[in-house]
Amino acid sequence: MFHLSLIGIGAGNPDHLTLQAIDAIRACDVILIPLKGPGKDDLAEARRAICARVIGTQGPQLREFRLPVRDPAQPDYRRRVDDWHDDIARIWERELHAALPKGGRAGFLVWGDPSLYDSTLRIAERVARATPLELSVVPGITAIQAMTAGHAIPLNEIGAAVAITTGRKLRQEGWPEGIGTVVVMLDQGGAFEALDPEGLEIWWSAYAGMKEEIRLSGPLSRMAPQIMKTRAAARRTHGWIMDIYLMRKTRHSA
Amino acid sequence: MFHLSLIGIGAGNPDHLTLQAIDAIRACDVILIPLKGPGKDDLAEARRAICARVIGTQGPQLREFRLPVRDPAQPDYRRRVDDWHDDIARIWERELHAALPKGGRAGFLVWGDPSLYDSTLRIAERVARATPLELSVVPGITAIQAMTAGHAIPLNEIGAAVAITTGRKLRQEGWPEGIGTVVVMLDQGGAFEALDPEGLEIWWSAYAGMKEEIRLSGPLSRMAPQIMKTRAAARRTHGWIMDIYLMRKTRHSA
Repeated sequence: MFHLSLIGIGAGNPDHLTLQAIDAIRACDVILIPLKGPGKDDLAEARRAICARVIGTQGPQLREFRLPVRDPAQPDYRRRVDDWHDDIARIWERELHAALPKGGRAGFLVWGDPSLYDSTLRIAERVARATPLELSVVPGITAIQAMTAGHAIPLNEIGAAVAITTGRKLRQEGWPEGIGTVVVMLDQGGAFEALDPEGLEIWWSAYAGMKEEIRLSGPLSRMAPQIMKTRAAARRTHGWIMDIYLMRKTRHSA
Repeated sequence: MFHLSLIGIGAGNPDHLTLQAIDAIRACDVILIPLKGPGKDDLAEARRAICARVIGTQGPQLREFRLPVRDPAQPDYRRRVDDWHDDIARIWERELHAALPKGGRAGFLVWGDPSLYDSTLRIAERVARATPLELSVVPGITAIQAMTAGHAIPLNEIGAAVAITTGRKLRQEGWPEGIGTVVVMLDQGGAFEALDPEGLEIWWSAYAGMKEEIRLSGPLSRMAPQIMKTRAAARRTHGWIMDIYLMRKTRHSA
């Protein structure tokens, strides 16, 4: 019997770690650390650093393993993701049995929160279909909270609704009907350009919560080119970028 | 000159506290604790407990003060809330000057995260119009994350959008157009009854993140009466209730 903890570790600031996450890490027998391959393992390195900080001499072992990649030959997005999750689940299962032949407690450190645009919960559910598994989830600070904290802005207007969506969906479907505030995640870059900027304000953060954090905000019409330029430059400097933004209809235009 | 820290302390579990929040509390000269009046100060007591746990002998002083109530004679909801925030801002200003006559660092401990359905940021902005103020925000675990962690469910479906709304808005406007997942907060009770339950699943948590946490989930048509009954009983037992829920269109009905 395995116990699997999916532990939210926050949005890139090591101090986003909660006391609950620290206890959950320490209670594991093994922490599983997935690797994406040479040059793509900044996140693995950050996970190692968190473990080094939190785990004493009696704590869990770290066990690293290589993740597969998504099949670029599969043209359907949902199908491509589903197949990839199936592959990862088989690898998790193999790793669990290898690391804990008599069963025990394994943990995964999840960026942000395990509930938000993250696949670990879906993979764990697949593993649970084949292997007896007790699952627990420890919440973590998301990039949304890191972004609103950085800009010192509320997520919602008083009594109003907020939509969280992806760059892909924003491009396909435009501004969600009847909603005054939209948060966009997983944007490959500049999905806001698909909107009529009139009457929209934007708050944009790259590397939200990290020491590299960059913030820009203002009317979308004025900020859009500056954000695109800043984004491209930051991507060149760091070799990768993760950004998130919030857009709001200004009061008089709502 | 004042520095004001709005510090998210999580959704009711004292272990939701982040390392960043602990550092921010310790860095203050004074922690301001608002009181709502006799019999309504469970939250003040929980804030005192967090301070007692985190603050050493050299840490900030605690300063408690009484909050005004909303004017029930003002019929307009937005206006009622705005007036109330104005009143509170005047009190914050008075308390800051009284606590720190030479300036310094004051902190407020905010339930959940300061960005989400919380008024502290709006009040701080009002104070900043009258008094030189440097503002910082420390993110905290929200009730949304506590709920999804408790149920071990993702917030979003793969690549899909999520709306966060209030009970009031759900009753007025129904299910948001083009959205598959809706989270409802600030519900006075049972706003889901305004929906056609066909093809909807619900995950409901009361006291999410707290030791009193109650969870129910299943098809909305079947769960609605059970949730209403459980909610009423819990409210009688504890004297108050805070609940939150997520509803999703089932795949075949989406």
